Amino acid sequence: MNFLEERILRDGQVREGDILKVDSFLNHQLDTGLLDKIGETFYHHFKDKPVTRVLTVEASGIAVAYPVARMFKVPVVFAKKSRSMNLDGDLYTSVVHSYTYNLDNTLTLSKNYLGRDDCVLIVDDFMANGKAAQGLLDICRQAGAQVAGIGIAIEKGFQDGGKNLREAGYDVYSLAIVDEMRNDGTIVFRGN
Amino acid sequence: MNFLEERILRDGQVREGDILKVDSFLNHQLDTGLLDKIGETFYHHFKDKPVTRVLTVEASGIAVAYPVARMFKVPVVFAKKSRSMNLDGDLYTSVVHSYTYNLDNTLTLSKNYLGRDDCVLIVDDFMANGKAAQGLLDICRQAGAQVAGIGIAIEKGFQDGGKNLREAGYDVYSLAIVDEMRNDGTIVFRGN
Repeated sequence: MNFLEERILRDGQVREGDILKVDSFLNHQLDTGLLDKIGETFYHHFKDKPVTRVLTVEASGIAVAYPVARMFKVPVVFAKKSRSMNLDGDLYTSVVHSYTYNLDNTLTLSKNYLGRDDCVLIVDDFMANGKAAQGLLDICRQAGAQVAGIGIAIEKGFQDGGKNLREAGYDVYSLAIVDEMRNDGTIVFRGN
Repeated sequence: MNFLEERILRDGQVREGDILKVDSFLNHQLDTGLLDKIGETFYHHFKDKPVTRVLTVEASGIAVAYPVARMFKVPVVFAKKSRSMNLDGDLYTSVVHSYTYNLDNTLTLSKNYLGRDDCVLIVDDFMANGKAAQGLLDICRQAGAQVAGIGIAIEKGFQDGGKNLREAGYDVYSLAIVDEMRNDGTIVFRGN
């Protein structure tokens, strides 16, 4: 069992509706020491790829992207979930449905920060049905950018997001894959 | 002139309506090397305070809070701008108006992550009228937490947010205070 799986067992909470609450260290309160370790682990896995950008979605994705981008010494670029009046009109956009907030988000990314010369590492804190990752891949397609892979902190292995992306040929590297969450609070990780 | 002021002159763009675009390094694409330097500078200024939490607002505030919290070896806690179904009902809330998006945001923070024993360093990428900082201070008041100070990357000195908070007795430390932005693109910093 790795450091993230151990932390999930210690501090994660199972809620109705297959919700795994990790608010205390990953997406509301942030443990930067843990996030630094996640960044180092993603770097170790993807370090042979010529990564030029680490791409994620606001907000909690930024906390996962930061330590990875520092290791690669490349910029983070994060897609915004609603169009900001401060962004120029020249945007990549992709509509994705958020089950967390139960609404459609339009992901927007300025065309200034992603192009055909880029090799993109996509990272996020969670993957379930993979809609956010699909939206980021759609933006990479629009940009003509190469995709180095996808780094995920926690994947819900009982949903098909990661499975579909791996079958599509992407290198999806998830630090913790949750295959089952039981009503008694038991969390079953893949490979343990 | 410090490293952030130099970067703003090099890569910042003045837009109509007193908008300073720093999307290329601070709040859409993120230069983690620059952000690490901002974090070290904030730490140097506030290091004698017994900081237990670094508090900010999603999304771009997270990128400023991360390197500061790492230096203090304390958690980041970020307020969310809209209520997440994954958050427990037990929340601090404060309504603030966003001029960037021209709408009212309800800042929400779980009561689990801020309390009367905390000494809070508030940080953000921008301060103009200070509404976001006022909302975070309101949340600190609700929590009964002590406020160590407020660290801001870029303050619009021609708006009254920073002035009001300093007059209220807060230690507001802004790395770059923009006193004037001219139509020809000239940016005038305080003290230069």
